[in-house]
Amino acid sequence: MISETIITRFENGRLLEQRSDQLAVEEPLEIRVEGKSIAVVMRTPGNDRELAAGWLLSEGVICGRDDLQDIVLPPGGAEDKINTVDVMLKNPAGFQAEKFSRNVITSSSCGICGTVTLDAAMRDLPGIASTLCVSAGLLHELPSRLHAHQPAFQRTGGLHACALFDATGNLVAVREDVGRHNALDKLTGWALFENHLPLAGYILLLSGRVSFEMMQKAFVAGVPVVAAIGAPSSLAVELAERSGQTLVAFLRGEALNIYTGAERVV
Amino acid sequence: MISETIITRFENGRLLEQRSDQLAVEEPLEIRVEGKSIAVVMRTPGNDRELAAGWLLSEGVICGRDDLQDIVLPPGGAEDKINTVDVMLKNPAGFQAEKFSRNVITSSSCGICGTVTLDAAMRDLPGIASTLCVSAGLLHELPSRLHAHQPAFQRTGGLHACALFDATGNLVAVREDVGRHNALDKLTGWALFENHLPLAGYILLLSGRVSFEMMQKAFVAGVPVVAAIGAPSSLAVELAERSGQTLVAFLRGEALNIYTGAERVV
Repeated sequence: MISETIITRFENGRLLEQRSDQLAVEEPLEIRVEGKSIAVVMRTPGNDRELAAGWLLSEGVICGRDDLQDIVLPPGGAEDKINTVDVMLKNPAGFQAEKFSRNVITSSSCGICGTVTLDAAMRDLPGIASTLCVSAGLLHELPSRLHAHQPAFQRTGGLHACALFDATGNLVAVREDVGRHNALDKLTGWALFENHLPLAGYILLLSGRVSFEMMQKAFVAGVPVVAAIGAPSSLAVELAERSGQTLVAFLRGEALNIYTGAERVV
Repeated sequence: MISETIITRFENGRLLEQRSDQLAVEEPLEIRVEGKSIAVVMRTPGNDRELAAGWLLSEGVICGRDDLQDIVLPPGGAEDKINTVDVMLKNPAGFQAEKFSRNVITSSSCGICGTVTLDAAMRDLPGIASTLCVSAGLLHELPSRLHAHQPAFQRTGGLHACALFDATGNLVAVREDVGRHNALDKLTGWALFENHLPLAGYILLLSGRVSFEMMQKAFVAGVPVVAAIGAPSSLAVELAERSGQTLVAFLRGEALNIYTGAERVV
């Protein structure tokens, strides 16, 4: 996840010696489904099968583990910079590659807008009905627990992280990536392989901001409580309202803002 | 760029009153070229023509202003949540919509990797040969100058910013967006409409991290010096090395790291 480079550093107006510095690795990953290339994501290598599984779930290519036959990395693996994963589906005949290009939208006659986007994001999925409750005090403790499990971030400053906590605040999984959406896809893919979906009993912590896309991925994974250190966007809040998710943001020090689903915070 | 919502706030373990909060607006924008939908980007409304122009330039749909016939917003505009821009090209016959889908890659026989991605990003464009020189002292002053021109960020905490400075450190343009790539596309689109491309005499300041995609956009716009408050990724540094750009990051307080092109910093 980390590569080395030589930098020139200035401090207090003085040129220091050249020194070694650590960078978060970014490499393309091509996701192929039934032999067809359907996406290239720029990601930090590692957990590529999880990334692909989470991405497929989030995009609606699969609805769960039962739809997957297998996800295979070509021989060699990430160490040889083989940046491809091959996905085999249980029902390959039902797969329409052209439907899942992210840029191809079927805009309704009223034109594209936030409402249309929310409708598409909700698909036919039911809202989140989890009865999970968390205390504000517990939420305050999560960022430091995540921080203790972000080794690559501490060395590079260049990685986003997503972490899953159970109802008592135990960290059960964390993933890091240069792209925050990749970090979440990896976490969701992990949950899929571990048969933890839907994540009805878990709290998701995001190291950064909450966009519509992040909230949509959390919704598809069934997460009832999303907490973020950064700010949410307007459409992220609207999706959380519609889906019945709790959205907490600006989780910093001893303060937090609850945007939706305040009934889950006690 | 800002919408209002009602939040529940906790501070020091105490539930405060419900209060009003400001959110960065996120809405989809559909970019149509010659009547065909080629992309939907999630962006903060405003400067949509600039965003489309910068995106088209960065994706290689156009090479400059001369390739553009016009970019038209449907009647009503962003206030009516009309989230579409229609692009007309000077040479519509030369446009192949299917070539510009971001997810469709023509991977070479050796497979996709960072090197292939860099080759694709460089296209047939020459490297950056600008003789622009900047002092470390000037670079240190840029973040506070940007901060003074980020009104929407200060109110929402949820927007990325990109700013263009001339060689003497004057801020000439700044754009904010929920997506950092959109903020840069808007800035590049502004430069295209103002006939400032290539941006050979300018410094680009980024409020966040530097991914490959951000560096690629800066390269296509011809920016010789990219400075960022956040961390760069490995592939961003590799692209800057290849393109001959200066990449400065971790520009904080009185310190900065130079990753490539140190000869431009005096």
